[in-house]
Amino acid sequence: MDTILKSFLDKIESKVSTLFQKDFLLTWEKSYEDLEIILTVAETLKYLRDKNISTRCFDSGLAISQFRDNSTRTRFSFASASNLLGLAVQDLDEGKSQIAHGETVRETSTMISFLSDIIGIRDDMFLGAGNAYMREVGAALDEAYAEGVLPQRPGIINLQCDIDHPTQSMADLLHLKTVFGSLENLRGKKIAMTWAYSPSYGKPLSVPQGIIGLMTRFGMQVDLAYPEGYDLIPEVDDLAGKQAQESNGSFRTVNAMQEAFKDADIVYPKSWAPYQVMQRRTKLLRNNDHNGLKELEKECLSNNARFKEWECTEKMMELTSNGKALYLHCLPADISNVSCKEGEVAATVFERYRVPLYKQAGFKPYIIAAMMLTNRFENPAGVLRNIEHRGRNRVL
Amino acid sequence: MDTILKSFLDKIESKVSTLFQKDFLLTWEKSYEDLEIILTVAETLKYLRDKNISTRCFDSGLAISQFRDNSTRTRFSFASASNLLGLAVQDLDEGKSQIAHGETVRETSTMISFLSDIIGIRDDMFLGAGNAYMREVGAALDEAYAEGVLPQRPGIINLQCDIDHPTQSMADLLHLKTVFGSLENLRGKKIAMTWAYSPSYGKPLSVPQGIIGLMTRFGMQVDLAYPEGYDLIPEVDDLAGKQAQESNGSFRTVNAMQEAFKDADIVYPKSWAPYQVMQRRTKLLRNNDHNGLKELEKECLSNNARFKEWECTEKMMELTSNGKALYLHCLPADISNVSCKEGEVAATVFERYRVPLYKQAGFKPYIIAAMMLTNRFENPAGVLRNIEHRGRNRVL
Amino acid sequence: MDTILKSFLDKIESKVSTLFQKDFLLTWEKSYEDLEIILTVAETLKYLRDKNISTRCFDSGLAISQFRDNSTRTRFSFASASNLLGLAVQDLDEGKSQIAHGETVRETSTMISFLSDIIGIRDDMFLGAGNAYMREVGAALDEAYAEGVLPQRPGIINLQCDIDHPTQSMADLLHLKTVFGSLENLRGKKIAMTWAYSPSYGKPLSVPQGIIGLMTRFGMQVDLAYPEGYDLIPEVDDLAGKQAQESNGSFRTVNAMQEAFKDADIVYPKSWAPYQVMQRRTKLLRNNDHNGLKELEKECLSNNARFKEWECTEKMMELTSNGKALYLHCLPADISNVSCKEGEVAATVFERYRVPLYKQAGFKPYIIAAMMLTNRFENPAGVLRNIEHRGRNRVL
Repeated sequence: MDTILKSFLDKIESKVSTLFQKDFLLTWEKSYEDLEIILTVAETLKYLRDKNISTRCFDSGLAISQFRDNSTRTRFSFASASNLLGLAVQDLDEGKSQIAHGETVRETSTMISFLSDIIGIRDDMFLGAGNAYMREVGAALDEAYAEGVLPQRPGIINLQCDIDHPTQSMADLLHLKTVFGSLENLRGKKIAMTWAYSPSYGKPLSVPQGIIGLMTRFGMQVDLAYPEGYDLIPEVDDLAGKQAQESNGSFRTVNAMQEAFKDADIVYPKSWAPYQVMQRRTKLLRNNDHNGLKELEKECLSNNARFKEWECTEKMMELTSNGKALYLHCLPADISNVSCKEGEVAATVFERYRVPLYKQAGFKPYIIAAMMLTNRFENPAGVLRNIEHRGRNRVL
Repeated sequence: MDTILKSFLDKIESKVSTLFQKDFLLTWEKSYEDLEIILTVAETLKYLRDKNISTRCFDSGLAISQFRDNSTRTRFSFASASNLLGLAVQDLDEGKSQIAHGETVRETSTMISFLSDIIGIRDDMFLGAGNAYMREVGAALDEAYAEGVLPQRPGIINLQCDIDHPTQSMADLLHLKTVFGSLENLRGKKIAMTWAYSPSYGKPLSVPQGIIGLMTRFGMQVDLAYPEGYDLIPEVDDLAGKQAQESNGSFRTVNAMQEAFKDADIVYPKSWAPYQVMQRRTKLLRNNDHNGLKELEKECLSNNARFKEWECTEKMMELTSNGKALYLHCLPADISNVSCKEGEVAATVFERYRVPLYKQAGFKPYIIAAMMLTNRFENPAGVLRNIEHRGRNRVL
Repeated sequence: MDTILKSFLDKIESKVSTLFQKDFLLTWEKSYEDLEIILTVAETLKYLRDKNISTRCFDSGLAISQFRDNSTRTRFSFASASNLLGLAVQDLDEGKSQIAHGETVRETSTMISFLSDIIGIRDDMFLGAGNAYMREVGAALDEAYAEGVLPQRPGIINLQCDIDHPTQSMADLLHLKTVFGSLENLRGKKIAMTWAYSPSYGKPLSVPQGIIGLMTRFGMQVDLAYPEGYDLIPEVDDLAGKQAQESNGSFRTVNAMQEAFKDADIVYPKSWAPYQVMQRRTKLLRNNDHNGLKELEKECLSNNARFKEWECTEKMMELTSNGKALYLHCLPADISNVSCKEGEVAATVFERYRVPLYKQAGFKPYIIAAMMLTNRFENPAGVLRNIEHRGRNRVL
């Protein structure tokens, strides 16, 4: 075995994992060592694939996807991850089935799971409902497994909910680890998670929440910046503060993009809708109140328009550490004069960071595959060792 | 080889199969031994998977699904079965293709079949059309194979039509075999297939017809109960009577739920639309007569409402053998005060039988896989022996 | 190794391929030897599958399909080809994602490609846009691969564009090679690519253009026939003339079906919309001008109706060589008195050639698989040799 691979496996084996058979719903429910294991398993899978070693560990099996909102990146990442491990994707398309609410979440969850290994869910439209839905599915699966109805308890992976977007934030973290060399090197680094202007409204809170909920665990100086009124779910705010303290980092909220950008090593400017708006929107969506939704959109867009100067311009970038902070985005970004007239980021800034941004996105399939693998296998290093030993080529 | 597996394989080998390369369209077209083989192959596949033995017998190959009506359970069962044997599912979505009627059923059937091993079809909306469509597809495939156009003749599996729902009734039968210990133990048992009230209309006849068309073959006392006017296709009625006589069981139709439930060992209360209504509905659907359909629905719902006492209540259950008949349903059920105000079954009854019901549903993927395997392999026991001998793990 | 297989592999090895890692967008961009290699690889894959040898050369991997227009035949052919080589299909459904124009073609192309080996695209609605779109995707992939964003550069296969339909024309060519015995035997044969009447309008130009763009390379006498005004893209016309000269064949355009059919060995009567109409239609589609589109359709249908005698009747067939020209069509055809009142071909003619037509269509999955294999493997004969040596059964 080559030394790089050996160092990966040694690292995984040196950590205590609590990932086995536990759903991945929120990063802050996972231990620090769990997160390290996910990252290293992802790196190992990428390393093996790049060397044309097949990482199939399922000869057959299903990975169910349920997208309650549009998706390109995550859909393809999930499909890629499933395929990488040997699982076939079966999409639960609610339009082609007859899925009601309440009681039947339990039933549907069970009915799709008889021969399933993984269920990936995106449910980010309704505040207070997305993550709750995943837990409802999880409880149904627990019950069905305990009752002997299911031969296995499929693992659930959160593909974005109202609270967190763990496959995104973990891919972001792997990107940071790669760029800065190690998780240790992130200690003391300043990251600016800031709101940015966009000509659309209603973007989920899960990305900024996911970032402050994850990055505060690595001793970083996390600045959250947004115009007054654009706050996140208070509980996540509180959690970020507590975590920052525990990791000897810092967490604060400021109301100027400039303040967050100042001396930042990493910037993440991204639009979102205020918590209060999302609450109102959730109510209107539930009532199918189309007029109400239109009015809310109008009101919010006009409010957004007051903050057009929240744009990641070249001038803004000059404020950062040596003017060279790493620019992050979950994509697609609203690029000024490219995808819209005025947006989150200036075209020249985006273009300069386009290659690293795309690399950032490229980690997601491996992060999801690592979440799958650690959910299904108690001893991930052992499985990877077997895979390497087997030495089967991915491409003949 | 362990003794359980050996007993399965011995059982399969002791029977004469006529399943090879024959479509599975109606259970009553299959011999008693054929049905026994399907059940035992399904049990074997489940046994092997539970022991983490991969049952892939296709290194590549396609299973085509065509759902002309919504489906969750059967769609996932079909996908699971395909995957279990190593086939990839390709859905024929008529919305994304341009499939006309008449001549082109022959053409389309051929065009999707060049490299296909199995075609699963759901077509239950039009009385007199669903099963006929499957046979039209089958005839096209026969012809194309005979003409040397197709390198193989894909097998067709009926995933529900206007007449029968064989993957459902066979899963139900495997459930009964498991609960009662053997097919022999079903002899003399009383099963009540009864209509039940539902606040919706137009439910297919295929489940009650499938049940009386299958259960009358095992020496059971089959009671079919429905309010006057809610009859099934007459031919299936006649067939059930004839089969009951041949198997030394009984078959009768009664017009009171109570009478059917009395001393029953198994009850299957389930709503359906009367045969005559389905005939009218078929005509209206063909003519795209939306107003006519609305009127028919109104008329039928008001007629249904006269029979709200046709509910599987606790009191009704008390009439059954020791008050403990096994409750069956194809799911989803209309549960009173849960999924609707007044429905087919009381919540307490449903909840008490929920676990066995879910187990019943869990047999469907294996039944479908067994139908696939016996269609493609002349010697199913031999294939299963090879699979066991190969000893490849499903999960590494 | 048997002698047939050996002769296939020897043939492939005797040619110089430039197919490796090059997109397949237009047949006339490929060398004569490249086309010969595609045909022989397709024949080899078919030969191996018919002998139940698994031709999987990917243990895992994704084939992305993007259909910007409806498709049955090509969709199933692409799925079959992918599966035959071991790739899982992931469909890029633009309705379920949020794909904008301009800048983001680059981004989307990259985002779906991290773990993808092949991308198949159908984009035939907009004149001047379909093939250009494929090249835009290709350029994005080149860039992303060069920048280290992608670990591999997925190959693109044109599944029909505004200019060419190479998977169709190559399947047609393999059919001709099979019927006439060799490519050499096509030399001097007369093929009539002619317009035919259809009661619909707006059919793409890609099939007639693909045929004249391919068949003029084999020393054939290619007659293109259409009513005045129904011309193709001028550049393809020019190209066909030049190629015919180089291959010592001929190419001419005539304005009577009879003239083209006279002494023809092969006839390909098929409706299309005039180039000028497609240009106007493209403009109207881009402007979402529904009224304009309706008017254009009306105008065109009435113009079409002036040429109802452009039908492949028995009488027309009598003009061909010994009255026995081989009839070709890409399917589905507009068959008079079957799929429409008056159409492209008489029912008796179609029926007489139905079996060869279906065989023609049956080559498409293998042509696509050959395009995939030669794109991914520098030494296709070596891969096929390995596959034969491995001797793994497709069906256990």
